[in-house]
Amino acid sequence: MRDYAVGIDIGGGSATIGIVDKNGEIIVSNRENPVRTHQHKNVKDFILALCNNIEDLIEEKKEILTLNKIEGIGIGAPTASYRSGTIEKNPNLPWSDEKIEIVKMMEEKINLPTSLDNDANVAALGEWKYGKGKGVANFIMITLGTGLGSGIIAEGKLIRGHNGLAGELGHIIVRRNGGRRCGCGRYGCAETYVSAKGLARTAIEFLEVSKKDNPSNLKQIYDARKKKGLLALQQEGYKEDLLICSKDVAEYAEKGDLLAHEIFEYTGKVLGEAMADYIAFSDPEMIVLFGGLVKSGDLLLNPVRKYMNQSLLNIYQGKTRIEISALNDHADAAVLGASALVWEGK
Amino acid sequence: MRDYAVGIDIGGGSATIGIVDKNGEIIVSNRENPVRTHQHKNVKDFILALCNNIEDLIEEKKEILTLNKIEGIGIGAPTASYRSGTIEKNPNLPWSDEKIEIVKMMEEKINLPTSLDNDANVAALGEWKYGKGKGVANFIMITLGTGLGSGIIAEGKLIRGHNGLAGELGHIIVRRNGGRRCGCGRYGCAETYVSAKGLARTAIEFLEVSKKDNPSNLKQIYDARKKKGLLALQQEGYKEDLLICSKDVAEYAEKGDLLAHEIFEYTGKVLGEAMADYIAFSDPEMIVLFGGLVKSGDLLLNPVRKYMNQSLLNIYQGKTRIEISALNDHADAAVLGASALVWEGK
Repeated sequence: MRDYAVGIDIGGGSATIGIVDKNGEIIVSNRENPVRTHQHKNVKDFILALCNNIEDLIEEKKEILTLNKIEGIGIGAPTASYRSGTIEKNPNLPWSDEKIEIVKMMEEKINLPTSLDNDANVAALGEWKYGKGKGVANFIMITLGTGLGSGIIAEGKLIRGHNGLAGELGHIIVRRNGGRRCGCGRYGCAETYVSAKGLARTAIEFLEVSKKDNPSNLKQIYDARKKKGLLALQQEGYKEDLLICSKDVAEYAEKGDLLAHEIFEYTGKVLGEAMADYIAFSDPEMIVLFGGLVKSGDLLLNPVRKYMNQSLLNIYQGKTRIEISALNDHADAAVLGASALVWEGK
Repeated sequence: MRDYAVGIDIGGGSATIGIVDKNGEIIVSNRENPVRTHQHKNVKDFILALCNNIEDLIEEKKEILTLNKIEGIGIGAPTASYRSGTIEKNPNLPWSDEKIEIVKMMEEKINLPTSLDNDANVAALGEWKYGKGKGVANFIMITLGTGLGSGIIAEGKLIRGHNGLAGELGHIIVRRNGGRRCGCGRYGCAETYVSAKGLARTAIEFLEVSKKDNPSNLKQIYDARKKKGLLALQQEGYKEDLLICSKDVAEYAEKGDLLAHEIFEYTGKVLGEAMADYIAFSDPEMIVLFGGLVKSGDLLLNPVRKYMNQSLLNIYQGKTRIEISALNDHADAAVLGASALVWEGK
């Protein structure tokens, strides 16, 4: 087995590439100057740019790197399919109408075995290879970003399922009747409650019913923004699509705002209860949390622990650890995860 | 690898033993005269009886069998642990206060490698080796008996989890608030709705609120039994612990009783919705249903299919088959399943 792996994270507007050693050290990366998707008029040019970029990075570290020292390329992207090696209907890519046969195209251009998976699976693989998952045969990785993504490791394998679509825990129903409308078209999905966006929705529900004489500062901010209106705020540079965002809630909770704490409590309750159900499925040794929302730390984790423990079937009590991803503060966690695809099963 | 495996099903009052070939043919069995648990004053005597029984069965078929032709022994039992090889707190065994080290004790008595697992996992292994699961790397087996048991095969492995406790889908919460009280002490578990007992509970809920002028014959039976009282009925030989049982509902549904159909519809709805969630976890190629309740056929399966399809996330639409276990009418399905433990991973 060779010593290095290429990891490529295809995100919203750009692709970040890193060459990674077996310890998870990124030897060289294009992070200062990633490949911009919108600068390429078609997929072919984009793939060519990726391959040229890899060759440039090898050249940059030519004292230690050659193409022969690289085991392969791993790519992580939303809506990517491991089974077919394609990216389909990715709304963030300019050629989103196409089914992008990225694995085939990469392998034709550059002489390295290439594999691809969605960002949630890749995050789980990264944690398994370089993070808290080292040597752990059963764990679940939950990514709390805009949505709720997940990757499941069981019996020493990443569970991909028959169609490569396993691990959509964000779309398990947590409120069966009267649940929130989800982007998927259904109601009550976990991610409509447990995600940055879900927490913001909880905030607005709670703020709308909180009494006028409630001493919440968050409420004052909300009322002021509401008075001005979302459109006007956005014209002034406000970047969110709801009047309150998860960062506002975290900020005010840290200052002791009780209503903000209640918002975290409710979010943690829904996640903790859902985690008790995940445990009844695969009996993991631990559940690893990753993503922006996890940076709020115990604000979220305390209620998660409390409600998970309250909700567990007795045989599971005290058996599953909750951990924060070792890569959560790593700027290139997604690149590391993608590179871990190369080592999977080796 | 040798040609035969011993399967032992330790049930309520007795242990059934079969010697099984690789095609799932039971060559010889003690089913006419199983080992009665209550006839043995301690575990040691019971184990001795099992081993003697195996030797008797080999002798009975001595024209083809010798101890040397047997690969090993597989045992299925409720509350059994694969990891520790023990049966604990099994309320159906007379020595239930003991932790029964059955694997160790068997191996000391008889020179055959022995393994043990709980009845739901063993059912999944049996289906995988001898039934609809042949060659299938991803499926979920649901056993609808008194409760709801399950075994999960993913990526070509039975998912046992970190503590050997994976696959308790009967204890995933399907009604978060106001759900039915479960034997586990919590509320809203799947098996309080979807099981023989769960269906009977639904029946009573529905019968209690149905109008007096409803032309349901099931309602007439119920009212008559209610008038007499459960205790009086039981003294006359009625064996159920609720005034209506799942067989009553199936019988009247088959005769066209609308209320009985509604009871199946509701049961199928809860199961179909739950199955849509299972699919979001492990993306199985199929879900196999097993157990007494499945004998009601399309009465249950039609609503299961309908509500599962309605509830699925779009990416899973049309991708998972629902099958009835190939072993559902097999009198010795549990013995076959236990024998499949011997071949696991070989």
